[in-house]
Amino acid sequence: MKMFNTYDVIVVGAGHAGCEAAAAAANLGSKVLLITMNMETIAQMSCNPAMGGVAKGQIVREIDAMGGYSGIISDKTTIQFRMLNLSKGPAMWSPRAQIDRKRFSETWRLALEKTQNIDFWQDMVSSVIVKDNVVTGVKTSLGMEINAKSVILTNGTFLNGVIHIGEKKLGGGRAAERAATGITEQLVELGFEAGRMKTGTPPRVDGRSLDYSKMEEQWGDENPGKFSYTDVELPTEKRCCWITYTNHEVHEKLKEGFEQSPMFTGRIKGLGPRYCPSIEDKINRFAERDRHQIFVEPEGWNTCEIYVNGFSTSLPEQIQYEALKLIPGFEKVKMFRPGYAIEYDYFPPQQLSLTLETKLIQNLYFAGQINGTTGYEEAASQGFIAGINAHQKINDKHELILKRSESYIGVLIDDLVTKGTEEPYRMFTSRAEHRLLLRQDNADIRLSPIAHELGLITDERLERVQRKVSEADEIINFCKKHSITMQEANEMLTNQGSAEINQSVKYINLLGRPQVGINNLRSISDNLNQFLNNYDQETIEQAEIKIKYESYFEKEKEIIAKMQKMEDRNIRPDFDYSILNSLSKEAREKLNRIKPRTLGQASRISGVSPSDISVLMVHLSK
Amino acid sequence: MKMFNTYDVIVVGAGHAGCEAAAAAANLGSKVLLITMNMETIAQMSCNPAMGGVAKGQIVREIDAMGGYSGIISDKTTIQFRMLNLSKGPAMWSPRAQIDRKRFSETWRLALEKTQNIDFWQDMVSSVIVKDNVVTGVKTSLGMEINAKSVILTNGTFLNGVIHIGEKKLGGGRAAERAATGITEQLVELGFEAGRMKTGTPPRVDGRSLDYSKMEEQWGDENPGKFSYTDVELPTEKRCCWITYTNHEVHEKLKEGFEQSPMFTGRIKGLGPRYCPSIEDKINRFAERDRHQIFVEPEGWNTCEIYVNGFSTSLPEQIQYEALKLIPGFEKVKMFRPGYAIEYDYFPPQQLSLTLETKLIQNLYFAGQINGTTGYEEAASQGFIAGINAHQKINDKHELILKRSESYIGVLIDDLVTKGTEEPYRMFTSRAEHRLLLRQDNADIRLSPIAHELGLITDERLERVQRKVSEADEIINFCKKHSITMQEANEMLTNQGSAEINQSVKYINLLGRPQVGINNLRSISDNLNQFLNNYDQETIEQAEIKIKYESYFEKEKEIIAKMQKMEDRNIRPDFDYSILNSLSKEAREKLNRIKPRTLGQASRISGVSPSDISVLMVHLSK
Repeated sequence: MKMFNTYDVIVVGAGHAGCEAAAAAANLGSKVLLITMNMETIAQMSCNPAMGGVAKGQIVREIDAMGGYSGIISDKTTIQFRMLNLSKGPAMWSPRAQIDRKRFSETWRLALEKTQNIDFWQDMVSSVIVKDNVVTGVKTSLGMEINAKSVILTNGTFLNGVIHIGEKKLGGGRAAERAATGITEQLVELGFEAGRMKTGTPPRVDGRSLDYSKMEEQWGDENPGKFSYTDVELPTEKRCCWITYTNHEVHEKLKEGFEQSPMFTGRIKGLGPRYCPSIEDKINRFAERDRHQIFVEPEGWNTCEIYVNGFSTSLPEQIQYEALKLIPGFEKVKMFRPGYAIEYDYFPPQQLSLTLETKLIQNLYFAGQINGTTGYEEAASQGFIAGINAHQKINDKHELILKRSESYIGVLIDDLVTKGTEEPYRMFTSRAEHRLLLRQDNADIRLSPIAHELGLITDERLERVQRKVSEADEIINFCKKHSITMQEANEMLTNQGSAEINQSVKYINLLGRPQVGINNLRSISDNLNQFLNNYDQETIEQAEIKIKYESYFEKEKEIIAKMQKMEDRNIRPDFDYSILNSLSKEAREKLNRIKPRTLGQASRISGVSPSDISVLMVHLSK
Repeated sequence: MKMFNTYDVIVVGAGHAGCEAAAAAANLGSKVLLITMNMETIAQMSCNPAMGGVAKGQIVREIDAMGGYSGIISDKTTIQFRMLNLSKGPAMWSPRAQIDRKRFSETWRLALEKTQNIDFWQDMVSSVIVKDNVVTGVKTSLGMEINAKSVILTNGTFLNGVIHIGEKKLGGGRAAERAATGITEQLVELGFEAGRMKTGTPPRVDGRSLDYSKMEEQWGDENPGKFSYTDVELPTEKRCCWITYTNHEVHEKLKEGFEQSPMFTGRIKGLGPRYCPSIEDKINRFAERDRHQIFVEPEGWNTCEIYVNGFSTSLPEQIQYEALKLIPGFEKVKMFRPGYAIEYDYFPPQQLSLTLETKLIQNLYFAGQINGTTGYEEAASQGFIAGINAHQKINDKHELILKRSESYIGVLIDDLVTKGTEEPYRMFTSRAEHRLLLRQDNADIRLSPIAHELGLITDERLERVQRKVSEADEIINFCKKHSITMQEANEMLTNQGSAEINQSVKYINLLGRPQVGINNLRSISDNLNQFLNNYDQETIEQAEIKIKYESYFEKEKEIIAKMQKMEDRNIRPDFDYSILNSLSKEAREKLNRIKPRTLGQASRISGVSPSDISVLMVHLSK
C-alpha cells in the first residue's frame, strides 16, 4: 500500500514561490503535493514585513489579475497601504503594503488548505528522482520516495544556507531554521551549474525601547488602495510607521566593524543584491552621503517587534547594537536578534527555458531565489508561472510564456533566462522597456484574458474586466462629446494654476492639461458628476489615465508592433547554432547554451551582436 | 558599551515553563530576559492542542489564581471546552479545553510583550556562567555573554534531542526544529547527574481526508466554563471533535512494525511516559484489549490539520499510515507528518530544592521537562514557581513553597524533589492525598492570599475572592434558615428519584441528598430563587459544594492538621545526617542527598522508614 499516490506536481518549499506554484497548478486541476520543512512557517516573510513597492507592486497586481493569491492575502493582512509615486506618471504608481507577518503566513496556509487538490507533507527533500533525464519524484530526509509527473523546486535561501554575523558562521536556511542539504550536490552531479549568492536582513528590535517622538510619522494613504482586483474585505485598523536617519556617528561606529565584516574580508563569496544593499555597503559605496534613511516598520497589528528597514547588516552584533543606539529615537534600543547575511546556492537561470523548466531535466522546474532573484514578489510570480507550466506540460497543453510587452513577469523571466544574473535580481520599472503599458491599473486588462483562457479565473472575473474597459470608453466618449463653459471652468483652472479658457471647451481637452484631473472637473460640473455617479472609482481612474496618456500609449504600442516581428520569429528549441559559421564564436556558444525561443530573445543575449542577428534572420527566412 | 545590562533573571526557553517563569518574575518587578531559539515559536504546543484535563486542569486553575497567564491565554484561544468528570464528586471535576495552536502561541507572545520588564533575545544558550558555585549569566551560540543574578533553565525536549521514526534518527528538539547542545555536557562537568527520557507525539493528518460520518461527534459543554477566575472574554465560535477506535486489524498492522520500533529494539534508552503511552505500548501492555479510543482533535478554528490523540507512535511512517487507514473514518487518510518519539536529556529533580533552585549551583533554577515531567500544565506551574523564587531570592525575600495540602503544584514539586522520577512525571488526582480540598472550584480561595501577599494579584482580585467566600456563606446560612414545604418539594423529589418529605424541611437538609441540587430547589422555590438572583453562578456553585461535602472537607482538614506537625517541623538545609548513627544507611544517604526541608518531606522519601523518622524526631526535639 503506497503512502502517496503519484502526484501531478510536487512543489518543494512553501515560501512565496512554492505557495503560488502549488495554488496555480492545483487550481488548474493538478494533484499537488506541497512539501515544506515546517508547516508552521508556510509563506513566512523571511525579511521585510511588506509586499509590493516600485515595480514589485505591479507584479503582485499581475499575479492577482491571473488568479494568484499573493494580492488577496496581502490585502487581508495589510496594516498600512501606500500608493508610491503618485506624483509621477501612472506607469510609476506602485502599490505597497506593510503586512502583519504572522497573519500573512496563517492566511496563506488557510488559503492553501481550502484549495482543492493540494496535499501537504512536512519533511526535507534531499534529492529528486530522475529517470532518462525526466524527473519522476523526490526523496526526503525521512526516506520517502514520492512520485510525481513534475517537480518544482522553490528552495529559497535554504540550499546549503550559511548565516554570517561578523566572524561567526552558522548553518541555517533562515534565522533559527535548518539549512537544506543534498539537492545542490545531486543537481551538480546531474550536470547543473550551481553558484553562490548572498542576501541579508536587518536586526529586529523591541518597539517598546524606541522613542518615536524623535522620528517622523509615516501613515498610510487616507483612502488606501489594494492589490487585488477582486472584492477583498480590507482590515479596518491601521498602524503607523516611522522614518529616521543614520548619521556620521552611526557610520563611523559601523566602520569599526568593517575588519570583521564577512562581506569585506572575503568570507562571503556570493554576490549580494546591489539594490538592497547592507548598511555597510551603502556607507562604502556612497561615502559622500552623510545619512541614510531608516524605515521603522512594525511587524504586525499588535506585536512590538520592529523591522529596521534600511539597516540590513552582517557586522558583529555588538557593532550593530552600538551603531543603532546612535540613530535618533534608538538611543535606548533593545534588540530581539541581530541582522545577518546568508549565503545560499542558486542555479544560474540560463539553464531554464522560458517556462521555467530546466533544459537538462524534463518536467523539473525552478522558481524563486533558487534562480538568483531576490524579493517575495519576484519569487511568487515565478512560482505562479512554474505551477502553470508544470500543469500545462503534463497535460499536453500549450506553454505559458508571458511577453515582455504585456507584463513585468514576462520581463523578469526573459531577463533571467536570456541574460542570467550574477547578483540577486530585483525588478525595477527601468528593466521593462514597455513600462508605460505595464501599469498597476491595467494588469487586469492585460492579463485576465490569458488567465481566463487557461482556466484560472472565472467568466465573471473576465466580464468584470471587460466591463471596466467598455465603461472607461463610455466615460472617454462622454468627455469627448460634452463641453464645459468658461464661466464654469475658469475659477477652478486658476486655482489649479492652469490657463483660463475663453470659450466652451470639451472635457477631454481640459483633461489633456497636466494640472487638471477628472475630479477637478467633476467638482464644478453637475453634468459630468451625475454621469460619473454611474461608474466606480477604478473605472473612472482608468478612463482618466487613458485620456491623459493615450498618445504615449499609442506610440509605445507602435514600437511594440514593430519589434513584435522579431518576437514572433520563433526558433526551434533544438536548433543547433554551431552549423552557422558566420556567427561569432561567442554568439554561437551563448545561443547554444540559452537556446532562445524567438529572434527577439536571441537579440537580448549579451554577446549576440546585431550582425549575429542578421545572420540568424537570413538563415531563418530560408 | 554593553549590549545587555545585568538582568535580574534570565529565562532560557520560551515554552510553557519559560513563559510563566518570565511573566512571574517580571510581574514581581525583576528585569527579565527571555531567550528563545525562535521568537516565532514562543509557547508552541509541541504535542496535543489542548490544556487541562484531570488534575492538569486544576493546575491551570491554580496558576491562574496566583496571577499566571496560562489560564487566561487558554480561555482566549479555546475552540472547545469541557468540564470532565462532572458525574463524580467535585474533587474530580476537571476543566479541559481544545486550543487553537497558532492563536495560543501568538496570544502568549503578545501577553509577554505587554508585560513590563521582559526583554527578548533570539539565540541558543550553550552554557551557563558560574562563579564560585553561583550562576552569573549565560553564554549563547552567537557568542554573547549575558549576565544575570539568576538563571532559569526550561529547555524542554531540546537538550541533545533526538527524534526517532522507525529505524530513522534525526537530531532535533521538536519536528522541524534544531536540538540544543552544550548545556548538558557543561552541567555534568559541574557535577550534575543527567539522564535520558523519551516522549512521543502522534501523526498529524489532513482533516479533509477523514470521513467524520463514521465517528462519534464530541461537542464541548453547552455552557462552557473557563480556566481563569478573571473576566476573560471567551471566543464565541466552537469546533467539534470526534471519537473513533482502533481495532484488531489496526493492532495487527502496527505489530508488523514492532521489529523496527525504536522502543522495542532498545534504540531508545530513555523511559517514556507511562500514562501517555504510545499506541504500540498500549497494544503491548494491554494485549487483552481489542480497541483503543482515538480522539480526533482539530488544531484550530480554521485549519484542517488534525491531531490524532491516542495514536502517539514512533513506528515506521509506512506502518503508521497503513494502520491509520484501518481506523473507521480514516480509510482515505492523508498524513501531514508522521508521529515520532523524541529522546532528550533531563536532570533527576532530587538535585533541586523545593524552590526549584539547584542545590549545586546557587540562583540556578530548573523548570519543566528538564526536571523529568511531562505535560504543558506541569511545566507551566514549575516555571511559575521558579520565576517567583528566583525573584524572591535575589531580593532577599521569603521563598515560596506551596504545601501538598494546599495545591497540586505543591504536590508536584514535593514529589519531584523528594522522590525523583525515572519516567516522565504526570500529575494525577491520586498523587494528591488531600485532593478533596484541592479542587478546581477553590484554587482561588486556596491560593489568592498567597499570591496577593507576594504582590502577584491586585487588592481587587483578592477582594473578589473574599467576597466569593463570604457570599457563599450567606447562601449557606440562608439555606440553613429557610424551609421548603412538602407541597412545594415532593413532585421535584419524586422526579429526582429522592424520597418524599412529610413536613417542611430546611433547604440545607434536602441539599444533603445526592440527588438534589441547588438548581432543583431553585426551580421550585420563588423564595430561594429570588435570594439567589443576587449571586453569581460561581458563588452559588461554591456554596452548593460546601453544603454537600462539608463533612468530608472537615475530616480532611483534621487529617491535615495532624500531619501538619510533621510538615511544620523544619530541618536546616545544611543538616548533616551522617552524624545520626541510628539512621539506616539508606536513609542517611538519601536524606543527605535530598536534604528535606521538613520532617514531613523526610517521611516521604522512599527508603526512609518510620523508625528513621522517629530517630530524626527525637534528635530534632533536642
